[in-house]
Amino acid sequence: MVTAFAHGAASIKPYADLEECRKAASQGYETSGERNGIKVEGFDRGNSPFEYMHEGIRGKNIAFTTTNGTQAIEKARNAKHLLIGAFLNVSATADMAASLNEDLIIVCAGWKGRFNLEDTLFAGALAGRLESTFRSDDDALIAAVTIYREAKKDIVAFLNRSSHVQRLNRLNIHEDMAFCVKEDEYSVVPALKGDHLTV
Amino acid sequence: MVTAFAHGAASIKPYADLEECRKAASQGYETSGERNGIKVEGFDRGNSPFEYMHEGIRGKNIAFTTTNGTQAIEKARNAKHLLIGAFLNVSATADMAASLNEDLIIVCAGWKGRFNLEDTLFAGALAGRLESTFRSDDDALIAAVTIYREAKKDIVAFLNRSSHVQRLNRLNIHEDMAFCVKEDEYSVVPALKGDHLTV
Repeated sequence: MVTAFAHGAASIKPYADLEECRKAASQGYETSGERNGIKVEGFDRGNSPFEYMHEGIRGKNIAFTTTNGTQAIEKARNAKHLLIGAFLNVSATADMAASLNEDLIIVCAGWKGRFNLEDTLFAGALAGRLESTFRSDDDALIAAVTIYREAKKDIVAFLNRSSHVQRLNRLNIHEDMAFCVKEDEYSVVPALKGDHLTV
Repeated sequence: MVTAFAHGAASIKPYADLEECRKAASQGYETSGERNGIKVEGFDRGNSPFEYMHEGIRGKNIAFTTTNGTQAIEKARNAKHLLIGAFLNVSATADMAASLNEDLIIVCAGWKGRFNLEDTLFAGALAGRLESTFRSDDDALIAAVTIYREAKKDIVAFLNRSSHVQRLNRLNIHEDMAFCVKEDEYSVVPALKGDHLTV
């Protein structure tokens, strides 16, 4: 999503439900769908950032559904502000979160309702940038910051030990992961306005 | 519980429900109760290990209820083997877990259904001792082992940053915590047999 906006996408409409997302094609949306790490059959794109790095993305309205991310957006939909953060835009996300002058909950999408390592590392990367702005004694936050500080010397090597790599056991997962853990490639911060994410 | 058995307790009957536990007093049990870190009014003992370090414990049958621990036991009751591990008996627990030749789930009691730091550190301490015995690619386990390795230089200092200290904001919490993070003080491993824990 962050990569799509960095390449000029106009909007992303997140869907928790795959079939609802598929129907959006008839309403002028391009469709992006991922389940279990694999592009959904019949959708225009999957979840690899490399599918969003070209001029064809500019101005597009995209209907997007993922195994975990769009479910997390659905659950957090009633937040006053909802921002989409990733390693790729972590400092910009931290700056925007700090500027809102509100309490902050970092929602890790996880994997099918369970803890996962890559989201926790990101939470630690984000929280570490916000230590002078927010006060927290949350145990999970302390854990995330600790793991991130330990892993950041070589995040790719750290994540290679995780279940993520086994889970997404496809040819380009290592390439995707190596790109997705790059910090501050982009400065866009997608935010939910009504039904759509925009920047 | 571990300290009680190390000082000769005969059995511990865990109760998820406080009032059920209270009734056990009329059936010849001593009662131990903790809610929100505080000893329950009318119970013989609370949850501080220092209450269990004397000869009066020897031979006693104890009905025990805690905010999180006895709830976790209740949920895990159908396991083929259920062992009680703590820093105080971590190596003995690891040895017994390895000897059972079964799959292993480390259940962190946590705090009211949520993540907490002290149980996660213990899970990391236990898992680190079992790396040559079990194979796992579980993300939460990788995280726990990473946090423990980072924290073990000074576990007391690490836990002082946690919500636990605020939660259990009473005079003797620092004393309790400093004792409870000692590794391998005891070699007893309580195990559930029917309704009772014994060693």
